Amino acid sequence: MKLGCCYYPEHWPEDIWAEDARRMAEMGLRLVRIGEFAWSRIEPEPGRYDWDWLDRAIETLHAAGLHIILGTPTATPPKWLVDRMPDMVAIDEHGRPRGFGSRRHYCFSHEGYRTECARIVTALAERYGQHPAIVMWQTDNEYGCHDTVLSFSDAAASAFRGWCAARYGSPQALNEAWGNVFWSMEYRSFAEIDPPHLTVTEANPAHWLDYRRFASDQVARFNREQVAIIRARAPGVDITHNFMGFFTEFDHHDVGRDIDVATWDSYPLGFLEQFWFSAQEKAAYLRQGHPDIAAFHHDLYRGCSNGRWGVMEQQPGPVNWARFNPAPLPGMVALWTLEAAAHGAELTSYFRWRQAPFAQEQMHAGLLRPDSTEAEAADEVRHAAKVLAQIGPQAAARAPVALVFSYEAAWVLGIQPQGASMRYLELVFEWYSALRRQGLDVDIVSPQADLSGYRMVCVPSLPIVPEGFAERLAALECPVLLGPRSGSKTASFTIPEGLAPGALRTAIPLTVTRVESLRDGVAEPADGFAVTRWREDVATALAPELADAAGRGVVFRHGKIRYCTIWPDRALLALLVERMAGEAGVERTELPRGIRLRRTQSHVFTFNYSAQGVFVPHLGATLPPASWHLAPL
Amino acid sequence: MKLGCCYYPEHWPEDIWAEDARRMAEMGLRLVRIGEFAWSRIEPEPGRYDWDWLDRAIETLHAAGLHIILGTPTATPPKWLVDRMPDMVAIDEHGRPRGFGSRRHYCFSHEGYRTECARIVTALAERYGQHPAIVMWQTDNEYGCHDTVLSFSDAAASAFRGWCAARYGSPQALNEAWGNVFWSMEYRSFAEIDPPHLTVTEANPAHWLDYRRFASDQVARFNREQVAIIRARAPGVDITHNFMGFFTEFDHHDVGRDIDVATWDSYPLGFLEQFWFSAQEKAAYLRQGHPDIAAFHHDLYRGCSNGRWGVMEQQPGPVNWARFNPAPLPGMVALWTLEAAAHGAELTSYFRWRQAPFAQEQMHAGLLRPDSTEAEAADEVRHAAKVLAQIGPQAAARAPVALVFSYEAAWVLGIQPQGASMRYLELVFEWYSALRRQGLDVDIVSPQADLSGYRMVCVPSLPIVPEGFAERLAALECPVLLGPRSGSKTASFTIPEGLAPGALRTAIPLTVTRVESLRDGVAEPADGFAVTRWREDVATALAPELADAAGRGVVFRHGKIRYCTIWPDRALLALLVERMAGEAGVERTELPRGIRLRRTQSHVFTFNYSAQGVFVPHLGATLPPASWHLAPL
Amino acid sequence: MKLGCCYYPEHWPEDIWAEDARRMAEMGLRLVRIGEFAWSRIEPEPGRYDWDWLDRAIETLHAAGLHIILGTPTATPPKWLVDRMPDMVAIDEHGRPRGFGSRRHYCFSHEGYRTECARIVTALAERYGQHPAIVMWQTDNEYGCHDTVLSFSDAAASAFRGWCAARYGSPQALNEAWGNVFWSMEYRSFAEIDPPHLTVTEANPAHWLDYRRFASDQVARFNREQVAIIRARAPGVDITHNFMGFFTEFDHHDVGRDIDVATWDSYPLGFLEQFWFSAQEKAAYLRQGHPDIAAFHHDLYRGCSNGRWGVMEQQPGPVNWARFNPAPLPGMVALWTLEAAAHGAELTSYFRWRQAPFAQEQMHAGLLRPDSTEAEAADEVRHAAKVLAQIGPQAAARAPVALVFSYEAAWVLGIQPQGASMRYLELVFEWYSALRRQGLDVDIVSPQADLSGYRMVCVPSLPIVPEGFAERLAALECPVLLGPRSGSKTASFTIPEGLAPGALRTAIPLTVTRVESLRDGVAEPADGFAVTRWREDVATALAPELADAAGRGVVFRHGKIRYCTIWPDRALLALLVERMAGEAGVERTELPRGIRLRRTQSHVFTFNYSAQGVFVPHLGATLPPASWHLAPL
Repeated sequence: MKLGCCYYPEHWPEDIWAEDARRMAEMGLRLVRIGEFAWSRIEPEPGRYDWDWLDRAIETLHAAGLHIILGTPTATPPKWLVDRMPDMVAIDEHGRPRGFGSRRHYCFSHEGYRTECARIVTALAERYGQHPAIVMWQTDNEYGCHDTVLSFSDAAASAFRGWCAARYGSPQALNEAWGNVFWSMEYRSFAEIDPPHLTVTEANPAHWLDYRRFASDQVARFNREQVAIIRARAPGVDITHNFMGFFTEFDHHDVGRDIDVATWDSYPLGFLEQFWFSAQEKAAYLRQGHPDIAAFHHDLYRGCSNGRWGVMEQQPGPVNWARFNPAPLPGMVALWTLEAAAHGAELTSYFRWRQAPFAQEQMHAGLLRPDSTEAEAADEVRHAAKVLAQIGPQAAARAPVALVFSYEAAWVLGIQPQGASMRYLELVFEWYSALRRQGLDVDIVSPQADLSGYRMVCVPSLPIVPEGFAERLAALECPVLLGPRSGSKTASFTIPEGLAPGALRTAIPLTVTRVESLRDGVAEPADGFAVTRWREDVATALAPELADAAGRGVVFRHGKIRYCTIWPDRALLALLVERMAGEAGVERTELPRGIRLRRTQSHVFTFNYSAQGVFVPHLGATLPPASWHLAPL
Repeated sequence: MKLGCCYYPEHWPEDIWAEDARRMAEMGLRLVRIGEFAWSRIEPEPGRYDWDWLDRAIETLHAAGLHIILGTPTATPPKWLVDRMPDMVAIDEHGRPRGFGSRRHYCFSHEGYRTECARIVTALAERYGQHPAIVMWQTDNEYGCHDTVLSFSDAAASAFRGWCAARYGSPQALNEAWGNVFWSMEYRSFAEIDPPHLTVTEANPAHWLDYRRFASDQVARFNREQVAIIRARAPGVDITHNFMGFFTEFDHHDVGRDIDVATWDSYPLGFLEQFWFSAQEKAAYLRQGHPDIAAFHHDLYRGCSNGRWGVMEQQPGPVNWARFNPAPLPGMVALWTLEAAAHGAELTSYFRWRQAPFAQEQMHAGLLRPDSTEAEAADEVRHAAKVLAQIGPQAAARAPVALVFSYEAAWVLGIQPQGASMRYLELVFEWYSALRRQGLDVDIVSPQADLSGYRMVCVPSLPIVPEGFAERLAALECPVLLGPRSGSKTASFTIPEGLAPGALRTAIPLTVTRVESLRDGVAEPADGFAVTRWREDVATALAPELADAAGRGVVFRHGKIRYCTIWPDRALLALLVERMAGEAGVERTELPRGIRLRRTQSHVFTFNYSAQGVFVPHLGATLPPASWHLAPL
Repeated sequence: MKLGCCYYPEHWPEDIWAEDARRMAEMGLRLVRIGEFAWSRIEPEPGRYDWDWLDRAIETLHAAGLHIILGTPTATPPKWLVDRMPDMVAIDEHGRPRGFGSRRHYCFSHEGYRTECARIVTALAERYGQHPAIVMWQTDNEYGCHDTVLSFSDAAASAFRGWCAARYGSPQALNEAWGNVFWSMEYRSFAEIDPPHLTVTEANPAHWLDYRRFASDQVARFNREQVAIIRARAPGVDITHNFMGFFTEFDHHDVGRDIDVATWDSYPLGFLEQFWFSAQEKAAYLRQGHPDIAAFHHDLYRGCSNGRWGVMEQQPGPVNWARFNPAPLPGMVALWTLEAAAHGAELTSYFRWRQAPFAQEQMHAGLLRPDSTEAEAADEVRHAAKVLAQIGPQAAARAPVALVFSYEAAWVLGIQPQGASMRYLELVFEWYSALRRQGLDVDIVSPQADLSGYRMVCVPSLPIVPEGFAERLAALECPVLLGPRSGSKTASFTIPEGLAPGALRTAIPLTVTRVESLRDGVAEPADGFAVTRWREDVATALAPELADAAGRGVVFRHGKIRYCTIWPDRALLALLVERMAGEAGVERTELPRGIRLRRTQSHVFTFNYSAQGVFVPHLGATLPPASWHLAPL
């Protein structure tokens, strides 16, 4: 795994570039990402390009032995461009045009802006496509950040009408698919269709799902256009995009297919603070991040792009954007780096080289402080670089467990939670964490992935079952677990004929006859676990494998395939993981709180995410806080 | 009481209509409501009506022995109509036009839309007004649902100006009535008046109150127009509208005067979750609903329309629209049905016959599942039908207690709570519940109602005292209780001369000299109860009947009339009910938690709303959970 | 200190004016503020003035021996004016024009409205400038109330562009100062610059800071225009403006420089309810207000205008605008009056003479009730008047402690809290309260104030250090404490070269190398106190004076100057106050909970803010609740 950093030569006096480059190399960095916000410097006036500074920056970095990841600057169109086509901005959910003055103010559907992007990316790729320093291109930056996938602009409405026409052929077919007879929502022509915007009560979930699919497609199309331009001018050079954490607004599997390397931006402390973790977890892992946050995304994005992946932005200290922004415990930056290696990353690039003293991210730590002294992370990077050099390249092995992740599932449960605590990402994460707590390595895969060869398959929830999925499941010989709401929807967001689990009934013979959601705080007892949040009634000839205190089935099993009717709490998850692993003959390791394992093809890594020293039985030793142990397999 | 269901033939293939009708009849249903969202099928193109399908649907249902309640489809104008007059949509409180794609997107004040409604209702009534199958007409659907009573459109502004001109005659009179000299808000002409929209801080409460009165009048006028069209074409056929629960945005007494039968839509589990009940109550009654939710509305709406009322939509299983959506305990659907009968309902109609597999309400249970199998409620409906047949028609007796309910009071306390926990509906509900907990039957009546003949009268709060009300109270010979803020406002939302309780001072000689609201969590002790939320200082020659620990009067009594100066907690409510009932010679029954009584002219019903079996002293027996006991009087 | 009241002759029949005036005088009042919302009566039609009623009102009041404070009516432009120039209204943060129907609907930047204001103020000043009854003029009313300092109108955008041009000279200079190269935010001309409005994520903090400075300048300019008009026509008559509590949206020091007497509107119970105080404090001081709320503002505003200050609106009973509105304990209105005197106020004017029975503030108590009977406060006012007469004029002495307060600091920490619990006002208030709890008198001063002569100086936080401030600090011979984030920003909202504390490094040799914010509930132990909310890592050769349990420095001391790296909890504040006072030789008095001291040049006041009697050691006696003790020094 190579180390790198994100660097903005345009932010610094040219006379320190060479020294920066020298220090990067000395610190053990080999890669440097540049350029992704520099439109106003590359093209300071409409049509007037200024390449000189960028030429020199690239030369200077290259001269120090660094390779460059070059970003396209399309996430930050300059003001002159917005002023020339004011309707290029996205319209937010309240109907307000999004203002200039930060970033990502564009609408993915605006044809004029897409033309401008093609122009600037072409110019960039023509100039640097063959440059020997450039080893990777990054398209745009963090698609969708700041809630920017959805836009309700005229451009989006118009594009959506075309998308609907292409998908359905006739308004009658669309009406039928969506069930628009309900509430007289039928359309006579595609021209009558609007985005699901500012409706009096919720819009048709089928309308929403198609709007989300459309919006995701617009992102993928936007990205694909840049990829095509770059590929034509930089043949053989890898292309990436930097995805985000806990983000499902577009289908990353889809975008991932068009790029070579999926990278993501890893901010474990910020993510811990901003998401659903309990106050107790937020306190316990305050300066370390929950032990599964980074690993979850490593395994998720490895599954997005043919196994090639990396960390494009790695938190090196306090960030500026969470509600609270603590500093990592000493050792965590190195630990996070090693965790990425343990999952088979090609690169880990720290964001950013030097903390900027100005503008929006001035409180975001870098490897250097604004005064160019080294920040706390610098020595940890040096140390990680040394360890990585010692152990050599680490390749991810196929994990014993496949965890099926579907962006569409996230949209479906988001559009129709049916209970305020039904959160798809949390559900999958809880499964992931339960597997990790027992020392199991996990591949997070798309529903289209080849599942053969896995020794356990977990499908936390898959409302819409892709064609052939049920058959592929049934053909597996390993234990499979299907979670609640699986098979509960057709592709048109309707309840399938014969009810849930629809197509999955070929895998396990049962019918979901009723579902209910339970308010927070309600926990109905079962044997060693509790029913919370969600439960389904099931009609089946199968005897329940697990039932609640009243005898209602909670887990049903049909051969190798199980169906779980409830939101599984941690006790039930532990029990299910134990049983399935036992049946599969997969070795488990009950790990102490805060300890995690991960194996590559050659090594086994043990990490202590706890803020205290922890005795680790399988090592027979105590790991200090924020430390790791590394051994050949 | 007849049973029925809500049915949407347009949602289902025509070839199953007859079988559906047969099954309805078999299940014990006699009524079926149809048509209320079918505009796009009745008039698929502007001016082109398609009656055939509806003719056939009516015939098919009728042929099975069912009678029909036919709805006007004006709650869901189709897209072609909105596109023809885009300004017909309501404008929300943020100034945003409400989008197409759900329902109720129209503005009650738009003349063009009212013309369209008159046209479609006329066409419908001309076709079916004399049809023998149709026993009832329903106007529109759930006026005001999804916060749609208020609109801030140009149409509404213009209509409001006319309304003000009609009410006040001159801008000077309006200025005087509202007190517009305050903050230079004086108008020189009615044309200068806007809705109270997006004002910098709160608008004049008099402005708000008149805007609420205007908006309520617009609803009543809208309804009255449909009623007149139907009456002329369907003479002698009952007309209803289906009201909602815990909803006070328009004056239901006013609308109720124009219809024959007040119906309402009863969703006990959804209402429990969505309203002010404590977390403890929400857990205890999770799958039953609070024992007074349905009963409260039964008694309220019975008082809205000359005593003729019913349940148009009865929850038959989990709904889709609350934050959490549990399933009813087995037995509850039958129990809710019997509770309606015990309050004298003419009909209870389940919503809906079959769960729709598509669109917004696909997670809303029906009597059938989407696959046409029977849902849990079906057998309960059969059972309820049998019980109802056995006991025969049940007529409501005049209750011993009148509880005075005023929509205007809800507006006044909503516009000017003066303490964040001052909620009119909750206050009335607490009184109602206290009476029910002691086994008392209650009539909820308007301030205009004839109060003679009642044995106790409770007025939880009545800020604006209608003409003659004080005199009518004074003439009563039964115990009367007046709650805080009664008589505190004139009709123009000013403090009356001589201060509160204004006109009520003829009933009880005291003056409210100061009021204060107390933050949540503050409870100041008194003898057996506590002062919370609200208290008033009173100047009077009367000695307090009850006082707080510091000796300040809490309840004053003057002959039969009491005035309570505080938000009464449950202990004080119990004490007051006990005293008043004792004085009135009304027999009380202290009921165990979760048990309720209700008497018709012929029977006494005992209901167990608890999730556990409860020993009921007056029965000398234990009632299982979600069960009832029925005895002749 | 003179007592007065706020009076609205236009609200009352003319035939009671004389009696009102007589009763005011009898009650001990000498001042009466009038006119500030009367535009629609002064100019009922465009260009037609009606002075007669105001002439008579002034004469009537004057005849009773009262002196008048005359307000300009510019906070409430009438509807006819808004209709003539509809773009004069402010645009809110959501892009919505602010509606007519309350007050403060104007945009400070609208030139047309400023012209209208100049016209009405000129007319008023020409008519009454020389009137012997008028002893003070008040400009407008509560600038900024209801979130009205910021506007995003075209008028504001245009004015902001001019402001930027004046400040920076060239767009290049602005780009450089703001760091607009970040995210391609560079402008090519001032015409390209918008307000920081509806940006996708946060705008550049430098953009925000300048927009806040601009908006503050617009307020000051607006005020200055009125001041100039009045001064020219009422030479020698004092001019005031009535500021608000806990309000920092514009620079009050700046506005204060243009007026003669800074007054403020004191609502201790409303402020307690609406701000950050804990639920426990809100309960303990429910009817008294936190003991430092009024005192804090007295000392703050005394520092805003050369030491001349007063209370223009004093809460006399329950108010109408807080979430909950309790009544003051008996005695509190007098106590609040005496507290103002103890801080050297020139006047305390009660809001309002008589409770209005109509419009927005009808639930706001006055000295009289709406029926003209005396409210509870009336006798307390009489009593306070008597006490004040007995003790004679009270002049504020220079306090031993200077507490440095910066409006710019409030903006900086508001724009970039970096931790959700970082609240500048709370931080300063906590320092103030800690000093008061030890019986110390405090002057709250601007960073520009002369600090010589103080015996202790506390700077809770001063991110941007004004020129010369560090040198002035270093020259002091008294103990000085600098709080976290001091010196952390340049005037352009960037991190200073050499890092924080920037210019203050000349005062204490240390460097802040990293900061972190801690989530609510996290408290890391130290010796007798805890680290919460905020902590900084420091590089320095100084040994820490205080450290946390892990040995990290929390307080560093260099000679007389200390730097505190954390959000100080109350235990640490107490310790620091004790040490500094000890070093300074300032006598402390550890006061019991709820007891406060304050000294004038001649007297020492002891106040009991507790709801219970409290034994006060320095008096050797128990003070009843809501009472005071007064003694010559």
